[in-house]
Amino acid sequence: MKVVMLQTSPEFGEVDRNLDDIDRRLEGVQADLVVLPELCTTGYQFRDRAELGACAEAADGRTVERMCGRAAACGGHLVFGFAERAGGRVYNAAAVVGPDGPLGTYRKVHLFADEKRLFDPGDGGFPVFDLGGVPVGIMVCFDWIFPEAARSLALQGALVIAHPANLVLRYCQDAMVTRAIENRIFTVTVNRVGTEERVPGARLTFTGSSRLVAPDGAVLADAAPDGPALLYAEIDPRRAREKHVTTTNHVLTDRRPDQYRLGRFNPDGTDSEP
Amino acid sequence: MKVVMLQTSPEFGEVDRNLDDIDRRLEGVQADLVVLPELCTTGYQFRDRAELGACAEAADGRTVERMCGRAAACGGHLVFGFAERAGGRVYNAAAVVGPDGPLGTYRKVHLFADEKRLFDPGDGGFPVFDLGGVPVGIMVCFDWIFPEAARSLALQGALVIAHPANLVLRYCQDAMVTRAIENRIFTVTVNRVGTEERVPGARLTFTGSSRLVAPDGAVLADAAPDGPALLYAEIDPRRAREKHVTTTNHVLTDRRPDQYRLGRFNPDGTDSEP
Repeated sequence: MKVVMLQTSPEFGEVDRNLDDIDRRLEGVQADLVVLPELCTTGYQFRDRAELGACAEAADGRTVERMCGRAAACGGHLVFGFAERAGGRVYNAAAVVGPDGPLGTYRKVHLFADEKRLFDPGDGGFPVFDLGGVPVGIMVCFDWIFPEAARSLALQGALVIAHPANLVLRYCQDAMVTRAIENRIFTVTVNRVGTEERVPGARLTFTGSSRLVAPDGAVLADAAPDGPALLYAEIDPRRAREKHVTTTNHVLTDRRPDQYRLGRFNPDGTDSEP
Repeated sequence: MKVVMLQTSPEFGEVDRNLDDIDRRLEGVQADLVVLPELCTTGYQFRDRAELGACAEAADGRTVERMCGRAAACGGHLVFGFAERAGGRVYNAAAVVGPDGPLGTYRKVHLFADEKRLFDPGDGGFPVFDLGGVPVGIMVCFDWIFPEAARSLALQGALVIAHPANLVLRYCQDAMVTRAIENRIFTVTVNRVGTEERVPGARLTFTGSSRLVAPDGAVLADAAPDGPALLYAEIDPRRAREKHVTTTNHVLTDRRPDQYRLGRFNPDGTDSEP
């Protein structure tokens, strides 16, 4: 499986120009899976919900349609972040598209910082898509900090996690090694670069350093912290079917859910559910 | 809270000598919490269950009694690994002892490699002990690879995780940074050093590198990969009450259990429970 990671620097609000840029950078690229950043066609720092609403599109809208064309040209699937309008709601979503059209979207479950006042939280869990016979799970950016996200994907059989991101903190890239190891899964984190300061005083600098991590924690591809980048890696997703870390230890079947306390947290310091 | 980490190199089967060594190394040390390695009085590589049984002790046995004396001398609590006999069972346990006596044990839930044929798996979940007003959770060695272990402790209000270990792989030390960040908790991993080859051809080299990680991922103390070591760190456990990574993102209350799929894994690639 040939995986391509396209780290970009979108211009805020310039959807056509960003799509053109993506098209140009992917010109001639053949791949089974191309992963792009979160909100890669719109930019990130919306001032308010009205401004976001003006940029949001349906899951069968023009952006998705153009990306389907690009998927056809690449001969594989694309996973990319966009602002999805559905009814009166707007999600920070990732679309999965193939040569034959869109396969669906993932709507970000854990919203970060100001996203909470802009986007609606996703309620569709963490989906796994069959991409040419390979189960690929999706999560977006800040989902990384919740081990439950990657775990949910691995438990549903995902062998690869496509992870569009707009990271401003610097923790995630290293943490993805842990996510890969603890689930024995491939992780493909594609971040953006550049800065935005559309809200005065709230300058955001995106940390780049997109990376692909193998199930044993080896970093197979690593981008610079700045500048757009196109990275390739050839992976064998079947390696992620082997969940053993020793001959007798399987990271998923060794789990003991009856011994865990994973309910809700109460601020008084105790969880409410067994 | 003054935390002391004692990285040791036990001699297999020499319980008295190992206890003497610990006593000598802790001579004059004052601390609120002292963490020692897994199985720090017996050594690790038991050939069979009979040999293990001969070294195992009750939770009110001589080893725990001696450690209580050391706790009194240190003026605080000790967490250390030992082989616990209870009825016909033997657990890979960690005891928590204070100046006034033993507080209880944690029995390792996730057994590693040959431990599966030697020890009985713990069935008491992941306990949190009140040590002088600070909730301290316990896990042992290989529990690190299951994010559910540290998460269960954090959700029960632990501010510090005492983590005795006998690590032979090299993944854990880095992964503890992720465990600390994702739970905004202090982690105190105390590993052993040295080698054992009591089973011919199955030489084990323990990787040392004990480390204490703060809730923001900062490594506050880091031991060498070889040689015994005594490390000190002064921590403020209240820092781990602050679970926000941004003003609006709390790593525990932002969790969305209804969106996760954390049931059992079926080898056919789907989980059986919602």
